[in-house]
Amino acid sequence: MNPLAIPEIVIRRLPLYLRCLSLLLAEGQIVTSSQELADKLGISSTQIRKDLSYFGEFGKQGTGYDVRYLRDQLRQILQVDRCWNVVLVGAGDLGHAILRYGGFDDGGFSIVAVMDNDERKIGRSIGKLQVQDIAKLRKVIRKHGVQIAIIAVPTSEAQHVADALVSAGIRAILSYAPITLSLPEHTRIEYIDPVIGLQSMAYYLSPGHPQRPPT
Amino acid sequence: MNPLAIPEIVIRRLPLYLRCLSLLLAEGQIVTSSQELADKLGISSTQIRKDLSYFGEFGKQGTGYDVRYLRDQLRQILQVDRCWNVVLVGAGDLGHAILRYGGFDDGGFSIVAVMDNDERKIGRSIGKLQVQDIAKLRKVIRKHGVQIAIIAVPTSEAQHVADALVSAGIRAILSYAPITLSLPEHTRIEYIDPVIGLQSMAYYLSPGHPQRPPT
Repeated sequence: MNPLAIPEIVIRRLPLYLRCLSLLLAEGQIVTSSQELADKLGISSTQIRKDLSYFGEFGKQGTGYDVRYLRDQLRQILQVDRCWNVVLVGAGDLGHAILRYGGFDDGGFSIVAVMDNDERKIGRSIGKLQVQDIAKLRKVIRKHGVQIAIIAVPTSEAQHVADALVSAGIRAILSYAPITLSLPEHTRIEYIDPVIGLQSMAYYLSPGHPQRPPT
Repeated sequence: MNPLAIPEIVIRRLPLYLRCLSLLLAEGQIVTSSQELADKLGISSTQIRKDLSYFGEFGKQGTGYDVRYLRDQLRQILQVDRCWNVVLVGAGDLGHAILRYGGFDDGGFSIVAVMDNDERKIGRSIGKLQVQDIAKLRKVIRKHGVQIAIIAVPTSEAQHVADALVSAGIRAILSYAPITLSLPEHTRIEYIDPVIGLQSMAYYLSPGHPQRPPT
Protein backbone atom coordinates (compact mmCIF):
# COMPACT_ATOMS: atom_id res chain seq x y z
CA MET A 1 0.00 0.00 0.00
CA ASN A 2 1.13 3.53 -0.72
CA PRO A 3 2.35 4.83 2.66
CA LEU A 4 0.79 8.21 1.94
CA ALA A 5 -2.68 6.67 1.54
CA ILE A 6 -3.01 6.29 5.31
CA PRO A 7 -4.06 9.37 7.31
CA GLU A 8 -1.14 11.02 9.06
CA ILE A 9 -3.04 11.10 12.34
CA VAL A 10 -3.18 7.29 12.25
CA ILE A 11 0.59 7.08 11.75
CA ARG A 12 1.11 9.45 14.66
CA ARG A 13 -0.81 7.13 16.98
CA LEU A 14 1.19 4.00 16.05
CA PRO A 15 4.25 4.95 18.17
CA LEU A 16 1.91 5.27 21.18
CA TYR A 17 0.61 1.74 20.57
CA LEU A 18 4.17 0.52 20.08
CA ARG A 19 5.38 2.07 23.33
CA CYS A 20 2.44 0.55 25.21
CA LEU A 21 3.09 -2.91 23.70
CA SER A 22 6.82 -2.73 24.47
CA LEU A 23 5.94 -1.96 28.06
CA LEU A 24 3.47 -4.85 28.31
CA LEU A 25 6.08 -7.15 26.82
CA ALA A 26 8.68 -5.98 29.33
CA GLU A 27 6.18 -6.82 32.06
CA GLY A 28 5.89 -10.33 30.64
CA GLN A 29 2.39 -10.03 29.22
CA ILE A 30 1.62 -12.41 26.32
CA VAL A 31 -1.79 -11.28 25.08
CA THR A 32 -3.64 -7.95 25.09
CA SER A 33 -6.86 -6.47 23.72
CA SER A 34 -7.84 -3.23 22.03
CA GLN A 35 -9.78 -2.48 25.22
CA GLU A 36 -6.70 -2.82 27.42
CA LEU A 37 -4.69 -0.61 25.07
CA ALA A 38 -7.60 1.85 25.04
CA ASP A 39 -7.66 2.04 28.85
CA LYS A 40 -3.92 2.63 29.02
CA LEU A 41 -3.82 5.24 26.25
CA GLY A 42 -7.09 7.14 26.60
CA ILE A 43 -7.95 6.35 22.96
CA SER A 44 -11.15 4.44 22.17
CA SER A 45 -10.87 0.71 21.39
CA THR A 46 -12.85 1.30 18.18
CA GLN A 47 -10.27 3.84 17.07
CA ILE A 48 -7.40 1.48 17.85
CA ARG A 49 -8.97 -1.39 15.91
CA LYS A 50 -9.70 0.93 12.99
CA ASP A 51 -6.13 2.28 12.98
CA LEU A 52 -4.63 -1.22 12.99
CA SER A 53 -7.02 -2.46 10.30
CA TYR A 54 -5.26 -0.20 7.77
CA PHE A 55 -2.33 -2.59 7.98
CA GLY A 56 -3.96 -6.00 8.23
CA GLU A 57 -5.53 -8.44 10.66
CA PHE A 58 -3.50 -8.60 13.86
CA GLY A 59 -5.90 -10.15 16.36
CA LYS A 60 -8.59 -12.78 16.54
CA GLN A 61 -12.11 -12.01 17.67
CA GLY A 62 -12.31 -12.97 21.33
CA THR A 63 -8.64 -13.86 21.85
CA GLY A 64 -7.08 -10.44 21.35
CA TYR A 65 -3.58 -9.57 20.16
CA ASP A 66 -0.33 -11.44 20.67
CA VAL A 67 1.74 -8.67 22.30
CA ARG A 68 5.10 -9.59 20.78
CA TYR A 69 3.69 -10.21 17.31
CA LEU A 70 1.80 -6.91 17.22
CA ARG A 71 4.83 -5.04 18.56
CA ASP A 72 7.04 -6.57 15.86
CA GLN A 73 4.49 -5.74 13.17
CA LEU A 74 4.25 -2.12 14.32
CA ARG A 75 8.04 -1.83 14.38
CA GLN A 76 8.10 -3.06 10.78
CA ILE A 77 5.31 -0.74 9.68
CA LEU A 78 7.00 2.27 11.28
CA GLN A 79 10.34 1.09 9.86
CA VAL A 80 11.94 1.11 13.30
CA ASP A 81 12.84 -2.59 13.22
CA ARG A 82 16.14 -1.18 11.95
CA CYS A 83 18.40 1.52 13.37
CA TRP A 84 18.30 5.02 11.89
CA ASN A 85 21.39 7.16 12.23
CA VAL A 86 20.63 10.60 13.61
CA VAL A 87 22.63 13.84 13.74
CA LEU A 88 22.22 16.12 16.74
CA VAL A 89 22.85 19.84 16.20
CA GLY A 90 23.58 21.77 19.39
CA ALA A 91 26.08 20.75 22.06
CA GLY A 92 24.78 22.94 24.89
CA ASP A 93 22.84 21.88 28.00
CA LEU A 94 20.01 20.50 25.92
CA GLY A 95 22.35 18.61 23.58
CA HIS A 96 24.03 17.03 26.60
CA ALA A 97 20.66 16.03 28.05
CA ILE A 98 19.52 14.53 24.74
CA LEU A 99 22.71 12.50 24.42
CA ARG A 100 22.11 11.17 27.90
CA TYR A 101 18.50 10.20 27.12
CA GLY A 102 18.26 6.43 27.35
CA GLY A 103 15.36 5.69 25.02
CA PHE A 104 16.72 6.15 21.49
CA ASP A 105 18.34 2.77 20.87
CA ASP A 106 15.29 0.70 21.75
CA GLY A 107 13.17 3.05 19.67
CA GLY A 108 15.21 2.45 16.51
CA PHE A 109 17.54 5.46 16.53
CA SER A 110 21.22 6.07 17.13
CA ILE A 111 22.82 9.50 17.47
CA VAL A 112 26.00 9.15 15.43
CA ALA A 113 27.21 12.74 15.49
CA VAL A 114 26.81 15.91 17.51
CA MET A 115 27.64 19.19 15.84
CA ASP A 116 27.94 22.83 16.86
CA ASN A 117 29.31 26.10 15.49
CA ASP A 118 30.87 27.18 18.79
CA GLU A 119 34.65 26.78 18.65
CA ARG A 120 34.78 26.33 22.41
CA LYS A 121 32.61 23.22 22.07
CA ILE A 122 34.04 21.68 18.89
CA GLY A 123 36.44 18.85 19.70
CA ARG A 124 35.09 18.24 23.20
CA SER A 125 33.84 14.78 24.10
CA ILE A 126 30.27 14.09 25.20
CA GLY A 127 29.98 10.44 26.12
CA LYS A 128 31.33 8.46 23.16
CA LEU A 129 31.00 11.32 20.69
CA GLN A 130 33.22 14.27 19.93
CA VAL A 131 31.53 17.55 19.02
CA GLN A 132 32.13 18.27 15.34
CA ASP A 133 32.14 21.53 13.40
CA ILE A 134 28.72 22.18 11.83
CA ALA A 135 30.66 23.12 8.69
CA LYS A 136 31.22 19.38 8.20
CA LEU A 137 27.49 18.66 8.21
CA ARG A 138 27.26 17.53 4.60
CA LYS A 139 30.22 15.20 4.97
CA VAL A 140 28.90 13.63 8.17
CA ILE A 141 25.45 13.12 6.68
CA ARG A 142 26.88 11.39 3.64
CA LYS A 143 29.27 9.24 5.64
CA HIS A 144 26.59 7.90 7.99
CA GLY A 145 23.65 7.85 5.59
CA VAL A 146 21.71 10.20 7.84
CA GLN A 147 18.15 11.30 7.00
CA ILE A 148 17.09 12.49 10.47
CA ALA A 149 18.36 15.41 12.56
CA ILE A 150 17.58 16.79 16.00
CA ILE A 151 17.73 20.56 16.52
CA ALA A 152 18.81 21.61 20.02
CA VAL A 153 20.14 25.11 19.39
CA PRO A 154 18.98 28.50 20.73
CA THR A 155 15.69 29.73 19.26
CA SER A 156 17.41 32.50 17.33
CA GLU A 157 19.50 29.95 15.39
CA ALA A 158 16.91 27.25 14.82
CA GLN A 159 15.64 28.39 11.39
CA HIS A 160 19.17 28.92 10.12
CA VAL A 161 20.18 25.42 11.24
CA ALA A 162 17.02 23.90 9.74
CA ASP A 163 17.83 25.50 6.38
CA ALA A 164 21.35 24.08 6.50
CA LEU A 165 20.04 20.61 7.39
CA VAL A 166 17.56 20.58 4.53
CA SER A 167 20.12 21.77 2.04
CA ALA A 168 22.50 19.02 3.23
CA GLY A 169 19.87 16.37 2.50
CA ILE A 170 18.11 15.85 5.85
CA ARG A 171 14.52 14.65 5.36
CA ALA A 172 13.13 14.64 8.90
CA ILE A 173 13.72 17.05 11.80
CA LEU A 174 12.88 16.83 15.47
CA SER A 175 13.06 20.36 16.91
CA TYR A 176 13.28 21.40 20.56
CA ALA A 177 13.09 25.10 19.71
CA PRO A 178 9.82 26.84 20.67
CA ILE A 179 9.20 28.26 17.19
CA THR A 180 7.49 26.94 14.09
CA LEU A 181 10.11 26.32 11.42
CA SER A 182 9.56 27.16 7.80
CA LEU A 183 10.52 24.13 5.69
CA PRO A 184 10.03 22.70 2.22
CA GLU A 185 6.88 20.59 1.94
CA HIS A 186 8.77 17.31 1.54
CA THR A 187 10.67 17.74 4.83
CA ARG A 188 9.09 16.13 7.89
CA ILE A 189 9.08 18.08 11.16
CA GLU A 190 8.08 17.18 14.70
CA TYR A 191 8.33 19.46 17.72
CA ILE A 192 9.13 18.65 21.32
CA ASP A 193 6.85 21.06 23.13
CA PRO A 194 6.45 20.67 26.90
CA VAL A 195 3.63 23.23 26.90
CA ILE A 196 1.31 20.88 24.99
CA GLY A 197 1.55 18.27 27.76
CA LEU A 198 1.21 20.84 30.53
CA GLN A 199 -1.87 22.39 28.93
CA SER A 200 -3.73 19.11 28.57
CA MET A 201 -3.15 18.48 32.28
CA ALA A 202 -4.15 22.01 33.36
CA TYR A 203 -7.67 21.27 32.09
CA TYR A 204 -8.11 18.78 34.92
CA LEU A 205 -6.71 20.87 37.76
CA SER A 206 -8.81 22.75 40.25
CA PRO A 207 -8.41 26.46 39.59
CA GLY A 208 -7.21 27.20 43.08
CA HIS A 209 -4.30 29.53 42.56
CA PRO A 210 -4.40 31.74 39.49
CA GLN A 211 -1.30 33.91 39.80
CA ARG A 212 -2.17 36.55 37.26
CA PRO A 213 -5.42 37.91 35.86
CA PRO A 214 -6.63 36.72 32.45
CA THR A 215 -4.97 38.60 29.58
CA MET B 1 -20.45 20.46 32.02
CA ASN B 2 -18.50 17.92 34.08
CA PRO B 3 -14.92 18.20 32.76
CA LEU B 4 -14.53 14.43 32.98
CA ALA B 5 -17.49 13.87 30.62
CA ILE B 6 -15.35 14.83 27.62
CA PRO B 7 -13.05 12.16 26.16
CA GLU B 8 -9.44 12.64 27.22
CA ILE B 9 -8.25 12.32 23.63
CA VAL B 10 -10.31 15.42 22.77
CA ILE B 11 -8.70 17.40 25.60
CA ARG B 12 -5.27 16.30 24.38
CA ARG B 13 -5.95 17.79 20.95
CA LEU B 14 -7.07 21.21 22.26
CA PRO B 15 -3.49 22.43 22.97
CA LEU B 16 -2.63 21.64 19.34
CA TYR B 17 -5.53 23.78 18.16
CA LEU B 18 -4.51 26.49 20.61
CA ARG B 19 -0.89 26.52 19.41
CA CYS B 20 -2.04 26.73 15.81
CA LEU B 21 -4.44 29.61 16.56
CA SER B 22 -1.79 31.52 18.52
CA LEU B 23 0.50 31.19 15.55
CA LEU B 24 -2.15 32.42 13.11
CA LEU B 25 -2.88 35.34 15.43
CA ALA B 26 0.82 36.23 15.61
CA GLU B 27 0.82 36.27 11.80
CA GLY B 28 -2.06 38.74 11.88
CA GLN B 29 -4.78 36.42 10.63
CA ILE B 30 -8.33 37.36 11.68
CA VAL B 31 -10.45 34.42 10.53
CA THR B 32 -9.77 30.72 10.01
CA SER B 33 -11.68 27.55 9.15
CA SER B 34 -11.72 23.98 10.41
CA GLN B 35 -10.28 23.08 6.99
CA GLU B 36 -7.30 25.40 7.41
CA LEU B 37 -6.62 24.06 10.90
CA ALA B 38 -7.01 20.53 9.51
CA ASP B 39 -4.44 21.17 6.80
CA LYS B 40 -1.97 22.60 9.28
CA LEU B 41 -2.41 19.87 11.88
CA GLY B 42 -3.01 16.70 9.87
CA ILE B 43 -6.29 16.14 11.73
CA SER B 44 -9.55 15.94 9.75
CA SER B 45 -11.80 19.02 9.70
CA THR B 46 -14.72 16.83 10.81
CA GLN B 47 -12.75 15.77 13.87
CA ILE B 48 -11.85 19.37 14.70
CA ARG B 49 -15.47 20.54 14.42
CA LYS B 50 -16.62 17.60 16.53
CA ASP B 51 -13.99 18.28 19.19
CA LEU B 52 -14.93 21.95 19.42
CA SER B 53 -18.66 21.19 19.49
CA TYR B 54 -18.24 19.65 22.96
CA PHE B 55 -17.70 23.17 24.24
CA GLY B 56 -20.17 25.23 22.23
CA GLU B 57 -20.65 27.01 18.94
CA PHE B 58 -17.48 28.87 17.95
CA GLY B 59 -17.92 29.50 14.25
CA LYS B 60 -20.60 30.40 11.77
CA GLN B 61 -21.42 28.22 8.78
CA GLY B 62 -19.59 29.76 5.84
CA THR B 63 -17.67 32.44 7.72
CA GLY B 64 -15.39 30.24 9.85
CA TYR B 65 -13.84 31.03 13.22
CA ASP B 66 -12.65 34.33 14.63
CA VAL B 67 -9.02 33.44 15.44
CA ARG B 68 -8.66 35.55 18.56
CA TYR B 69 -12.05 34.60 19.97
CA LEU B 70 -11.48 30.86 19.47
CA ARG B 71 -7.99 31.14 20.94
CA ASP B 72 -9.33 32.94 23.99
CA GLN B 73 -12.10 30.37 24.41
CA LEU B 74 -9.63 27.47 24.20
CA ARG B 75 -7.37 29.17 26.74
CA GLN B 76 -10.35 29.45 29.08
CA ILE B 77 -11.44 25.86 28.52
CA LEU B 78 -7.92 24.56 29.16
CA GLN B 79 -7.63 26.92 32.14
CA VAL B 80 -4.44 28.46 30.74
CA ASP B 81 -5.89 31.99 30.60
CA ARG B 82 -4.19 32.22 34.02
CA CYS B 83 -0.63 31.39 35.07
CA TRP B 84 0.08 28.11 36.83
CA ASN B 85 3.10 27.96 39.11
CA VAL B 86 5.35 25.00 38.35
CA VAL B 87 8.16 23.34 40.30
CA LEU B 88 11.09 21.88 38.37
CA VAL B 89 12.97 18.98 39.99
CA GLY B 90 16.46 18.43 38.60
CA ALA B 91 19.09 21.13 38.12
CA GLY B 92 21.36 19.25 35.70
CA ASP B 93 21.82 19.84 31.95
CA LEU B 94 18.18 19.10 31.27
CA GLY B 95 16.97 21.35 34.08
CA HIS B 96 19.08 24.19 32.71
CA ALA B 97 17.69 23.62 29.21
CA ILE B 98 14.10 23.58 30.48
CA LEU B 99 14.63 26.83 32.41
CA ARG B 100 15.93 28.39 29.22
CA TYR B 101 12.93 27.19 27.18
CA GLY B 102 11.04 30.25 26.04
CA GLY B 103 7.54 28.90 25.63
CA PHE B 104 6.17 28.44 29.15
CA ASP B 105 4.95 31.96 29.93
CA ASP B 106 2.81 32.33 26.82
CA GLY B 107 1.44 28.84 27.42
CA GLY B 108 0.16 29.68 30.90
CA PHE B 109 2.98 28.37 33.10
CA SER B 110 5.71 29.84 35.24
CA ILE B 111 8.55 27.87 36.80
CA VAL B 112 8.77 29.34 40.30
CA ALA B 113 11.29 26.96 41.86
CA VAL B 114 14.03 24.55 40.81
CA MET B 115 15.02 21.87 43.28
CA ASP B 116 17.72 19.21 43.55
CA ASN B 117 19.21 16.88 46.14
CA ASP B 118 22.81 17.48 45.04
CA GLU B 119 24.58 19.70 47.55
CA ARG B 120 26.93 20.97 44.87
CA LYS B 121 23.93 22.38 42.99
CA ILE B 122 21.84 23.70 45.88
CA GLY B 123 22.26 27.46 46.28
CA ARG B 124 23.52 28.04 42.75
CA SER B 125 21.68 30.47 40.51
CA ILE B 126 20.10 29.49 37.22
CA GLY B 127 18.71 32.59 35.58
CA LYS B 128 16.51 34.28 38.16
CA LEU B 129 16.11 31.18 40.33
CA GLN B 130 18.32 29.70 43.00
CA VAL B 131 18.46 25.90 43.23
CA GLN B 132 16.70 24.80 46.41
CA ASP B 133 17.07 21.68 48.52
CA ILE B 134 14.48 19.06 47.52
CA ALA B 135 13.91 18.57 51.24
CA LYS B 136 12.03 21.89 51.15
CA LEU B 137 9.61 20.58 48.51
CA ARG B 138 6.51 20.63 50.70
CA LYS B 139 7.20 24.15 51.91
CA VAL B 140 7.82 25.49 48.40
CA ILE B 141 4.68 23.84 47.06
CA ARG B 142 2.56 25.34 49.81
CA LYS B 143 4.13 28.78 49.49
CA HIS B 144 3.53 29.06 45.74
CA GLY B 145 0.28 27.09 45.50
CA VAL B 146 1.90 24.64 43.11
CA GLN B 147 -0.06 21.74 41.58
CA ILE B 148 2.26 20.95 38.65
CA ALA B 149 5.83 19.61 38.64
CA ILE B 150 8.38 18.82 35.95
CA ILE B 151 10.72 15.86 36.52
CA ALA B 152 14.16 16.29 34.94
CA VAL B 153 16.25 13.91 37.05
CA PRO B 154 18.23 10.80 36.05
CA THR B 155 16.06 7.77 35.20
CA SER B 156 17.13 5.92 38.32
CA GLU B 157 15.70 8.68 40.53
CA ALA B 158 12.53 9.49 38.63
CA GLN B 159 10.14 7.16 40.49
CA HIS B 160 11.51 8.23 43.85
CA VAL B 161 11.04 11.90 42.97
CA ALA B 162 7.54 11.24 41.62
CA ASP B 163 6.56 9.58 44.91
CA ALA B 164 7.86 12.58 46.86
CA LEU B 165 5.98 15.00 44.59
CA VAL B 166 2.69 13.15 44.98
CA SER B 167 3.06 12.93 48.72
CA ALA B 168 3.75 16.67 48.85
CA GLY B 169 0.48 17.39 47.03
CA ILE B 170 1.46 17.67 43.37
CA ARG B 171 -1.45 16.74 41.08
CA ALA B 172 0.14 16.80 37.61
CA ILE B 173 3.60 15.73 36.47
CA LEU B 174 5.47 16.28 33.22
CA SER B 175 8.31 13.75 33.10
CA TYR B 176 11.37 13.79 30.85
CA ALA B 177 12.60 10.40 32.12
CA PRO B 178 12.29 7.51 29.64
CA ILE B 179 10.38 5.26 32.02
CA THR B 180 6.71 4.82 32.84
CA LEU B 181 6.07 6.10 36.34
CA SER B 182 3.79 4.33 38.76
CA LEU B 183 1.38 6.89 40.24
CA PRO B 184 -1.93 7.08 42.08
CA GLU B 185 -4.90 7.18 39.75
CA HIS B 186 -5.80 10.78 40.58
CA THR B 187 -2.35 12.10 39.58
CA ARG B 188 -2.01 13.30 35.98
CA ILE B 189 1.13 12.39 34.06
CA GLU B 190 2.50 13.40 30.67
CA TYR B 191 5.78 12.28 29.17
CA ILE B 192 8.21 14.13 26.93
CA ASP B 193 9.36 11.35 24.66
CA PRO B 194 11.44 12.30 21.61
CA VAL B 195 11.19 8.73 20.28
CA ILE B 196 7.45 9.10 19.59
CA GLY B 197 8.10 11.99 17.21
CA LEU B 198 11.06 10.28 15.56
CA GLN B 199 9.09 7.09 14.98
CA SER B 200 6.16 8.80 13.30
CA MET B 201 8.63 10.43 10.90
CA ALA B 202 10.58 7.20 10.22
CA TYR B 203 7.44 5.77 8.64
CA TYR B 204 7.80 8.23 5.78
CA LEU B 205 11.52 7.83 5.11
CA SER B 206 12.98 5.75 2.35
CA PRO B 207 14.63 2.71 3.89
CA GLY B 208 17.98 3.45 2.37
CA HIS B 209 20.41 2.87 5.19
CA PRO B 210 19.45 0.30 7.77
CA GLN B 211 22.44 0.13 10.08
CA ARG B 212 21.60 -3.06 11.89
CA PRO B 213 19.57 -6.13 11.00
CA PRO B 214 16.03 -6.47 12.36
CA THR B 215 15.99 -7.88 15.90
